[in-house]
Formats: sequence, C-alpha cells, structure tokens
Amino acid sequence: MAVGKRVKRVDAHAKATGKAVYVSDMKFPGMLVGKVLRSKIPFGKIILLDVSAAKRIKGVHTVLTAADIPGKNVCHVVYDDMPLLATDYVRYVGEPIALVAAESEDAAVSALEAIDLEIDDLPPLTDPELYSNPESPILYGKDNIFSHHKIRSGDISAGFDKSDIIFEQTYRTTYQEHAYLEPQGMLAIPTQEGGIDVYGTMQCPFYVHGAVSDITGLPQSKVRIVQTTTGGAFGGKEDVPSLVAGWASVLALATKRPVKLILGRSEDMISMSKRHPSRVQVKLGASSSGDITTAEIDILFDAGAYATLSPVVLWRGIVHACGPYKIPNVKIDARAVATNKVPCGAYRGFGSPQTLFAIESAIDELALKLGLDDVELRRKNNLAQGDATITGQILSESVGLQQCLEKALDKSDYRTLKSSLKDDCGPIKRGIGISTIYYGVGLGAGGTHLARTGAYVSVQPDGSVQFAVGTTEMGQGMRTVLGQIVAESLGIPFENVYCLPVDSSRVPDSGPTVASRATTMSGRALLVTCSTIKSNIAKAVAGELGTSPKNIAFGENKVFRTDDPGTFLSWQNAVEKALALKTALTVVGHDSSPPTNWNEDTGQGDAYVVFAWAANIAQVAVDTRTGVARLEKLWAAHDMGKAINPTLVEGQIEGGSVQGMGYSLTEEYIIDEKGIPLNPRFSFYHIPSTMDTPEIFPIIVESAYSEGPYGAKGFGEQPLMGIAPAIANAIFDATGVRLREQPFTPERLWPKLKEVIDEN
Amino acid sequence: MAVGKRVKRVDAHAKATGKAVYVSDMKFPGMLVGKVLRSKIPFGKIILLDVSAAKRIKGVHTVLTAADIPGKNVCHVVYDDMPLLATDYVRYVGEPIALVAAESEDAAVSALEAIDLEIDDLPPLTDPELYSNPESPILYGKDNIFSHHKIRSGDISAGFDKSDIIFEQTYRTTYQEHAYLEPQGMLAIPTQEGGIDVYGTMQCPFYVHGAVSDITGLPQSKVRIVQTTTGGAFGGKEDVPSLVAGWASVLALATKRPVKLILGRSEDMISMSKRHPSRVQVKLGASSSGDITTAEIDILFDAGAYATLSPVVLWRGIVHACGPYKIPNVKIDARAVATNKVPCGAYRGFGSPQTLFAIESAIDELALKLGLDDVELRRKNNLAQGDATITGQILSESVGLQQCLEKALDKSDYRTLKSSLKDDCGPIKRGIGISTIYYGVGLGAGGTHLARTGAYVSVQPDGSVQFAVGTTEMGQGMRTVLGQIVAESLGIPFENVYCLPVDSSRVPDSGPTVASRATTMSGRALLVTCSTIKSNIAKAVAGELGTSPKNIAFGENKVFRTDDPGTFLSWQNAVEKALALKTALTVVGHDSSPPTNWNEDTGQGDAYVVFAWAANIAQVAVDTRTGVARLEKLWAAHDMGKAINPTLVEGQIEGGSVQGMGYSLTEEYIIDEKGIPLNPRFSFYHIPSTMDTPEIFPIIVESAYSEGPYGAKGFGEQPLMGIAPAIANAIFDATGVRLREQPFTPERLWPKLKEVIDEN
Repeated sequence: MAVGKRVKRVDAHAKATGKAVYVSDMKFPGMLVGKVLRSKIPFGKIILLDVSAAKRIKGVHTVLTAADIPGKNVCHVVYDDMPLLATDYVRYVGEPIALVAAESEDAAVSALEAIDLEIDDLPPLTDPELYSNPESPILYGKDNIFSHHKIRSGDISAGFDKSDIIFEQTYRTTYQEHAYLEPQGMLAIPTQEGGIDVYGTMQCPFYVHGAVSDITGLPQSKVRIVQTTTGGAFGGKEDVPSLVAGWASVLALATKRPVKLILGRSEDMISMSKRHPSRVQVKLGASSSGDITTAEIDILFDAGAYATLSPVVLWRGIVHACGPYKIPNVKIDARAVATNKVPCGAYRGFGSPQTLFAIESAIDELALKLGLDDVELRRKNNLAQGDATITGQILSESVGLQQCLEKALDKSDYRTLKSSLKDDCGPIKRGIGISTIYYGVGLGAGGTHLARTGAYVSVQPDGSVQFAVGTTEMGQGMRTVLGQIVAESLGIPFENVYCLPVDSSRVPDSGPTVASRATTMSGRALLVTCSTIKSNIAKAVAGELGTSPKNIAFGENKVFRTDDPGTFLSWQNAVEKALALKTALTVVGHDSSPPTNWNEDTGQGDAYVVFAWAANIAQVAVDTRTGVARLEKLWAAHDMGKAINPTLVEGQIEGGSVQGMGYSLTEEYIIDEKGIPLNPRFSFYHIPSTMDTPEIFPIIVESAYSEGPYGAKGFGEQPLMGIAPAIANAIFDATGVRLREQPFTPERLWPKLKEVIDEN
Repeated sequence: MAVGKRVKRVDAHAKATGKAVYVSDMKFPGMLVGKVLRSKIPFGKIILLDVSAAKRIKGVHTVLTAADIPGKNVCHVVYDDMPLLATDYVRYVGEPIALVAAESEDAAVSALEAIDLEIDDLPPLTDPELYSNPESPILYGKDNIFSHHKIRSGDISAGFDKSDIIFEQTYRTTYQEHAYLEPQGMLAIPTQEGGIDVYGTMQCPFYVHGAVSDITGLPQSKVRIVQTTTGGAFGGKEDVPSLVAGWASVLALATKRPVKLILGRSEDMISMSKRHPSRVQVKLGASSSGDITTAEIDILFDAGAYATLSPVVLWRGIVHACGPYKIPNVKIDARAVATNKVPCGAYRGFGSPQTLFAIESAIDELALKLGLDDVELRRKNNLAQGDATITGQILSESVGLQQCLEKALDKSDYRTLKSSLKDDCGPIKRGIGISTIYYGVGLGAGGTHLARTGAYVSVQPDGSVQFAVGTTEMGQGMRTVLGQIVAESLGIPFENVYCLPVDSSRVPDSGPTVASRATTMSGRALLVTCSTIKSNIAKAVAGELGTSPKNIAFGENKVFRTDDPGTFLSWQNAVEKALALKTALTVVGHDSSPPTNWNEDTGQGDAYVVFAWAANIAQVAVDTRTGVARLEKLWAAHDMGKAINPTLVEGQIEGGSVQGMGYSLTEEYIIDEKGIPLNPRFSFYHIPSTMDTPEIFPIIVESAYSEGPYGAKGFGEQPLMGIAPAIANAIFDATGVRLREQPFTPERLWPKLKEVIDEN
C-alpha cells in the first residue's frame, strides 16, 4: 500500500520553500551568542591563558576555560583522549581553548580578541607517514598509533608463491570536507528545574546526550536533546556535535541563559572532522587465468590530533579493503595515526572509499597486467551467495552484486559504448571505467554494543498515527521512508502517518544514525511496535468480527478476517472500538541486533549482518589540452534489498554519486606541511555545482534481505563509495594515464597526460 | 524509601525565584499577538460584522470570524453547543466574536476597535430560578435545561411519614472566581510540515489536543500540545484552554506565524468559567433519637450560556448532596439551566461545595431542631465501612471518616474549647463549627470513558530515570509526588528521578487532570510501567545473581535476591548489565479503571472507585460591631489513604482551606440582573491575602485504598469543600445567626446580627 511507492518527501516542501526551521533560525528570550577561541598554532604548550580582560567587556556574560567545566573536560567518542577545551597543549589549528557568551556577536568577538593567550610553539607532526620517525613528536600513547586492526586469512606466503602474477601498488587519498549546507550549531537552554535542553543540527542525539551529561555533570535524565532540521551531515555530524553541544551547554549553565553557538563556515572547515587522508599499499597475487588468490594490504590513515572515530572508521576500511572479491589468502594491517592536524572522523563510506579506491584501481591494473578484460576479471572473482568474505563470513542471502554488474553493463550498452567512444579523434578523449563494491550494513561487529533501536508509535483517537524514532533525518529521506513502513505495516494510507521530531526524551537510545542503518534498524523497531499495536487491536475487535485475534489482518485501511476479507471494520472504526475498550495503542518497541562473533586478532568473523552491493560504470571525458576530466555519464546499479521509496533511492544514488565525483575530481582540502589549513572556504575548496552534475542512470536491484523491513538493507553511503575508482579507471581507459592519488585535478592529470602524449 | 517522605517540591525553587517559564515568557521569531473581540451585550443577534477596516490597519496580519475557521466552529466539552466564535447570536457578556493577529498589542487593540459590529439587543435571562418562566427566552433546547440528574432510593413518602421531625430549608451559593495567579494563555506555532504545536497553561492537554484538531481540521497526529508551567488552575483550566488554544491555532494557521494569545485579568474574569451559583432546597426527615431516614433535595445550578462541563459538575453535586451520611430514603433532582451569563464549569470540588454547604448546614440546623449535639448527630449517621451510600454503593474499604472526626475533635480539644470560647463577654463573639464531608475520587461513573492513564518511563544508561505522564502539574505537587512513587517502585533515591514536561506526543491520552485523580491514576500507570521495567531487569540479571527473576527485588538502590538480600547488584550496575543485554528499559505503560455500573434514571450504582473523607472544625470570631466574621483557627482532618508526601498534603489542606474560606467569607462575583459583570477585577473581588490566613492544623488520616499507589486516594479538591458549612455553623455557634447564602460578608451578616442583638 505504501512501501515501494514514490510518495513525496514529507520535508520537501518546507525545505524547498525556506520554511524549514534550522537551529540558527531559533530564538529564545535572553538568548546569548556563544563563541569559541581556537588555536592558530598546530602544536604548542599553553603558557598563558588570562580571560580577565575579556570578561570585563561590555555585553560579555562569561568567558570559560577548561577549569570552568562543571563535569568532565572530555568529549568521549571511542576513547576519552579529546578534551572539550585544551588545557596544557594545543594539538591542531582550530583546537578550542576558551568559550565566550555575550549579548551580541560583536561583543563575543571582542571578548575573543581580548583573551590573553600565549603558546610556546613546538615542531608539529603533519605527515602521517612519518608517525614512527624518531624525530617526530609522540602525540598519542607510545607510538602515535590510535588503532591497529588486522585481517589474517589463509596463507599469503603460499598464496604469493603459487601466483603466476604479482601486482603491487600504492594509492593515496586526501581529505574530503563534508560541505554540509548548514554548519555545526547548537542552542542550549537551562531548564527551570536545573536540567538542560539542547537543540541543534546532528546525526546522533544519544551521543550528544551522553556527552552533555558527562561535560555538565548533570544526570542523563535531566538532559534533553532535540534534533532540529539538519541541513546535511554525511558523517560530519556524527561525533562533533557533541563538542558543540558541550560548549553551548557549559555556557548556558554558567550564564543561566539560553546560548546559541553556530560555527562560521571557515571556522567549521578548519576545526570540524574530515574524511581521513590515506595511503593504501596493495599487493595482489593471481593465476594467469585470473583467479585472485592472495592479497596483502597495508593501510595508513591520518587521524589527526585526537582519536575520535578513527578506530571504527579504520575498521570499516579494513573490512572492505579487498572489495567484493573472494580471496582466500589475505593479510591486512591498518593503522590510524596521530598528526597535528584536524581530527578526522566519519564521512559517508566511513573508511571504505579510501580502501575501495585502492582495490578497485588495483583490480583494473591487475586485469591489464593479466591481459584480461576488467569485466571478466570482476565476474570471475566477485562474491556470490554462499561465498566467504575475507573475514570468513559466509554470504547466506541477499547478494545482488552480479545483478548490479550485469544490469549496469546492459543499461549502458557497455561494449558498444566503450568501443564507440574510441572513434572520436578530437582533443576530448572519452573512456569507460567500472567499479564493483559492497558495503556492510549497520554498525557491524565493531559496534554491536550500540546496535539497538527503539520506536514510539501512538495511534490517535482519529485514527491518524504519530511515530518517533531515535535515528535522524539529515536529508536522506528517513522520515518519509519510515512513515511508509509504518503505513504499510498498519495497512493505512501514508498521509495518515506523521513522524515526530527526534527528541531524546521520547524514545530509548537508538544508537547513532550512521552506517546506513536508519531504514533497516529503525524500520525493524517500528515493525515490532506496530506489530504489538496490531495485536492489541486484533484482540479488541476479534469478537466483533466473529473470529479469534490470530485470524485478523490489516490492510487497505481495514481490519479484516483473513478467512473472510469481506468481514471487516474500517481502520478508524477499529481504533475507536479498541480505544473504547481502553486498549493500549501507544507503544514503545525495541529491536536490537544479535551479538556477532568477531576475533580482533585475526579479523575473522561475521563483520556485518548483511551487505549492500553496487556496480558503477562511468563515462569520463578528458580534455587533453587542459587535463580537465569530467564525469559525463554514470550508470549506478545498487542492491538495497528493497527500495521502500524508489524516488528517494534514486535521490541517494544521484546525491552520493555527485559527492563521490567531487571527491574524485575537484575537492582538495590542503593543510600544509607546517599544519596550516590553506583553503577553508568554498571559493578554494571546489564542491561540484549543478552544472557539473553528470547524466546519472540510477539502477535499482532488489535482492531482499530476510531480516530487513520489507527486505530493505541500508545503502545511503554506498553511492559515493565506488565513484573514485570508476573515474580513475575511466581516465585510464580514455588516456592511458593511471592516477593513484585523488582528486584527479588538472594539476595531477596534466603532467602525466603530457608524458603519455609526448610518448605517442 | 521515597514514599511518605517530605521531599522538597521539584518545582519549588523555579517558582519561588521567578525562574519558572510561563507561556507569557515565551517568544518565537516572527511571533504575533492574538486578541479576541468579545460581546459587551449579554444577549442579542449579530446583524453586522465587518472586519475589512480592521484588516487594513498597519501591523495587523489577519482578522478572523467564524466563517474563517478551517475546521468545526465548536469547542466540544460534554456537548457541542458552544462555538469557538459566535455566529448569529451572542449569549453572554464576554462571548468571543472575532480574532485578530497583529505585530503588536497596540495594533491588535486598534484592530479590535475598528471591527464594525452591530448587535440587536434581546432581553436576557439572568435569574436561573426563572428558567421555566414563560416570559423567559429559550436559550437551550426546549426548556433551558442542560442537564437533569436524579437519585431515587427507598421511599421518601414512607420515610417522611415515619419521621418524628421534618426539617426543610433552602440554601444558596454564588459564583466563585478561580483567581489563578496566571491568566489563560496559549502560544500556537505552525510546524514546518503543516501541523501545529501549542504551548500553554492548562490542566487537560488531551482535551486541548482534540479541540485543536477539530477546530483546525488537522489530523490529531499533526497536533502537539505542550503544557507550560501552569500558575494555578483549580478547574478553571479544565475546559476553557481548549477555546484559547483554538483561537491561537486558527490565527497561527491563517498567518503562518507563531501567535501568542494571553488574556488580560479582567478579560479572563469576564469570559472564563466560574463555580456555578446554586439553589439547594433540602428536606430531611429524622427520628427523635436522631436517625436521619429521609432526604428530598432539589438542586438548581446556574450554568450560564453554554453547557460546557455543567452536566458532569451537576452529577458530582447530586452524588454528594446528602453528605457522608447513610440515609435510606432519598429523592434528589438536580438541574443545570441556561442563562445569559458566563458559562460556569469546573472548580475545585466540582459541584459538591454547593450541595455540601446545604447539607452540612442543614445537619446543624436539624441537630438544633432535634435538641441533639451536632457531633453526636454526625457520629450517629456518618457513613462507615460496609454502609451503603445514597447511590447504593457499598463502602468496602478505606473509610476514614470516623478517624477524621475523632482526631479533629481530639486535636482541637473540642468540648473544652467550645465552652471556653463562650467566656468572652466582649464585642468579639467566637464560635465553633463542624463539617464532615466526603469526596468521590476520580472521574466516577459519569466519566468512565475518560478513565485511563498512560506513563512513559525511561531508565537512562547512568541509572537516572526520566518519566512522563499525561496528567499535569498545576501547583498541586503532582510531579513531585509521582516522582516519589517512581523512586519507591524502582527502589532508587528520589533525586535520581526526573519528571518530563507534559507533551501530548510523549504519552497516550491520559484523560483530564481533574477530580483529584492525578496521584492515584497516573500513579497506577507509573507502577504498571515500573513493574515492566523491573521485570525486564530481573530477567537480565537473575543469572548473575544466581536465582530466577521471580526471586529478585528492588530497594535501597539495589537489585537483590529476596531469599538472600546480601546477594545484590547496585541499581546502577544492574542497569548497565541490562542495557548491555539490550533489555528494554524504556516503556509506555497503561492503566484504566474498570467500567462501573450506573443507572442514570435512578442514580443508583457505584459512583466512584473510592472516597476520600474529611472533618473540619472551624473557630470563627465575629465582630458584633461590624458584622465581620473571621476564621481564626481550623482543624482539618483528611483521609487521603496515604500521604505520599505529608508536606504536600498539608500544603493542599492549607491552600484548599483558605480558598474555601474566601468562598465562605469574602469572594463575591456579581453579574447584575441585566447580565453585566460588575466587579471583574481583584480590587473589588476579594480573595484572601496572607494576612487573612487562619491558623490551620492539618491532620493526616491514612485509611489505605488497596487499589491506590501505596494506598493513596486523591483528595486535592476536598480541603475547600467543607469550609463554608463549618464557618456557617461556627457563625451560628458564635452569634445565633444562621446564614444560608454565601459569602458571609458583613453586608449579609450584620443585618441578621442586628436582629439577634436587638432581640436580646
């Protein structure tokens, strides 16, 4: 009735017409402006921090330093290494040192300028590849390693010994800025009974909830977190909103006034998390017939100054490091290391775009070396149902990879297209590149402790339904998709269902909204909850329908006998009767993923509950006169189990692909060797515009997941993940130039192109 | 651990220090001021209503009349007779006719003045006793009777025939104004997805919820009602907030802006509900030895222009009309009739203060006539366990009346005091008066369909607990008392429990917060909910404690084995373990009262689930030179089953008694015979001040109710109910003057006093 329909997004109108209320639109009586004093130095010891002059400025209500934090001076993410405000040392440009709350923006800025701060500079570590250099400073632990994961499977020595061909290469990626439309911002309001309410832009209200409680010292029951309309997130609002909320909260408690703290764009770019720069060294062994038997991979992530999410980002990176291939002998080491740069964190794909860029480029290179067709090499080695992944996980169901690949090939008319593109003898060279990828849905073995969701569903006396979940809408369309699931489950029209804003006081901790888990995991909790409600209604009206509750079903706005569908009550009528009998039609339901087996020493076990799959075919044009590469067309086939709303699925494919294109071609955030960010503004950091958008052909593959709501798996991150290698492979196809470091800007492409042109 | 303790009110500090946020303190960006055009004429036909000039005034965003209401033009209470805005006729001074939303108060007032309104006057019906006069207009139905209830029990003809003494008298009462500190007010905010959020001062969020949905035409799922700090209510915020919310909501939807609509004090007094004026005719038959065998009572309530709550107020009045006495032969008729005056509604006691004033005065008069001691007459006839009430309800438990009376007599040293007061020969005459009363707890047989509650309880990861209910805090201390119940149930300190603000989107419809039902009914729902949580925790930790879940108990911040209390986990530890196992610790629970038997034709059946009981002993001083009567001392003994918080029980006794004293001695709201209110301001309507407060001796009697939380029954209204007759009886004791119409102002007392003085 509702699932599978292209219903309109519930938030579309408000967002398109400017009516959506973002945290920066909110005002409360007596509200103050919060600001953060940040380090301009990448590494140094604070030797003076005097806020007394700043406090005396007219309109300034308070100036706080680490000493003034009522609870713990820590923003817990995976570890507890990151302070809310720096104390003795600063470790990156942008690190927060002090906070101001003032009547006005001007007064707050004046106060920041009046803070007396002296820092003794220290030589920074900025190149992650030097993390173990004896001359490098130790920024974390004994060795600068935040995290080291391993995968050990089979026997790589034997594997390489038996290989006909060994291929070895190194790939590098750099930062990606989230470039969300709405910068970070929070509004904290002290409540009249000594608690605090926090409104703001975020992905993970329960992370913020825990952080604000830790930082303020308030019990969690007195902290309430409300997500406001969130203008994009992409992982950038997973962990760092806890910092912003912490700052606003301590200011609000100190001044006993509402405090709004919104970051400026440059401030946000300088100080907020990014995608980890990486170096991935790949060594593959294969038979001459194209059986890839062995992989040895070394992964290095530049984590920046604090661990934040690096250990888990790295984990997803290592699990996906061999791509969607069955390779029996594998040894992978992955390290995230400390540098004096901005802490990196979550970004759509969460560590896998880096490793997938490497492996999917390497597969192409290996095919060339083997003299095999790249499609054939993939077909030969791609994972299929019943196969084991590199972590030893048997894929028992929902493996739509082959379908994705074949459909993409078919829709793009791959062979014909590829050869026809070569006919053009002009200065624009065109080529085709492929990538096949997979994506572990949900938090996986590394996040089992967080893998729970709750849902609140309340059937109103007029038959309309309110529901709430603990996962968030950040533009992906979750509120609409979950509404469709509720409507389908209760058998009522989508229009009769309304999704409440996320409020930590309305649902239990439902984990973070990350890892493409919202549809699947909140969807499951909603189904559990709706099931209780249906069971309660069935009990209430079974007598009236002359049958037993187990013979009652719901659909088409009716409650009917399964053995005699003509005998029914309208939904509205059934609700009225049930409420008259005081039936419970407001229910909180819970769902959780079972614990998974995982051996951290060997990296063996069931990494994820299920995987989504994708194949991308990219048509790229390279202007040989300028070195400018453009993505012209993209066939993106994705298996998400079930497209609850095909329009939103296509929207995710389009948005994610363009974001992946930006990552591939133009987006380059530069922190120089001294640790200074060079281009924290959109004039110099180039995200794609509408004019750059290629023609995208989204292809939906539905290989149902039996445990997902109506078969759905998550896939929101996946569209970005395979774009860079597909483009790199296409550039090679077009020009013969192999780029092993993104982004593929003219500055990188042109010199190599010139070499090739000069050779010919 | 927490129940029975004198813990501090959770809202005390915020209210005492001015930090509490009332709806008038709230501001939202773009917020407009709402105002209401009201009739200055008690009865007339609208012949012109032109808002075009008003709309053109600068700063005015909209002017709305009945024709502009998007949904139904009705404020449903018991019937659907009252419009949100008048259409053809106006029926009382203060009736709303049109609405304005403007940038400022000034612009709104200018717009009201610019509305072109012409009304053809009609002769009003203002004296309820003339409701059936052929010359009176018909304002409702065919006979001006909104409601007629009956009680028929035994045989009054035979009863009076056998009586040795027959006593007959008429008693009258007038209006009482609620005089809440905070006038009515609502703030409506259109949501970005086409719904509406309403914040305001109220008792019954679910009444407001239904009304706003009806009036706006929005589905209930898109309407959210949040109760703000409520500065007093006393029944005055039971039904009328639906009107105020309706006005604010239609203005907000029309302007697409937040609209705040706060009534001024005089506007509030003129237009908002009051306690019903009444005439109660009592005829009692008794044996010479003092057995009261027969009662015939006729009750007439002045309901005002619309029915609102009159049918149910009248019902409570009739059920309590014979006071707490066992009388076998009873015939009572009660009518609520229409007049061209402000609609009367709920007020602490809900119809029973009027009838209890009559019966408790009559008992005193009967004792005199019988030549019996008033205490002895009460002792002889008071209801006791096992007795039947006049509705035939057998009192099976929790009848603390005798204890109340004896304790009050004992604490006041009644006999000695009464005789010693007579020793004073000065111009100040002192006397003692007694009343014994009872109060049916909860909605009773007339409100069974509303008798349900829900509760949300969420145990946070740090072990602190949030809970929400659908009943409201309006000054009575409910949030504190319910917190004590939660803490006691879970066995944790009260400080670890936090009560969330009431929000219709957080809990199911829990019925109205009226009828002294919040502690008992929300308390029961909380116990049900906590019980589920405890059961879930027990299942999670039983293994760890080496026993089965049924052998697990909670207390003293521990989860322990019942057979071995030394084997335990701390609460915090148990919560952590349970959450690690993904146990559901956030639960919505439901409770409801069973349907009761009730025969509306005979007024026979179980009227209420249980009764609270009270005895008041009042010491009054009358200045024979001025006719001023003062309540000097009051011994107020109340049986509320269990005092969850004795301090709050005493607070209710003190506050209710003083409010009852105001009703008895000074408060007189006058609408003249033309239908014009004469004194809608506190300069002329005299509520007691601190200086008038007598010495009050609250006496707690705990006759446990087996179905109540920890034995508690409701009793919040009861302290007011018996004050007027106790004072009237004391005035008689002091002076020999019997007053049968309240308030007992010098204007009423002095002429009669003069007669007595002149006689002697």
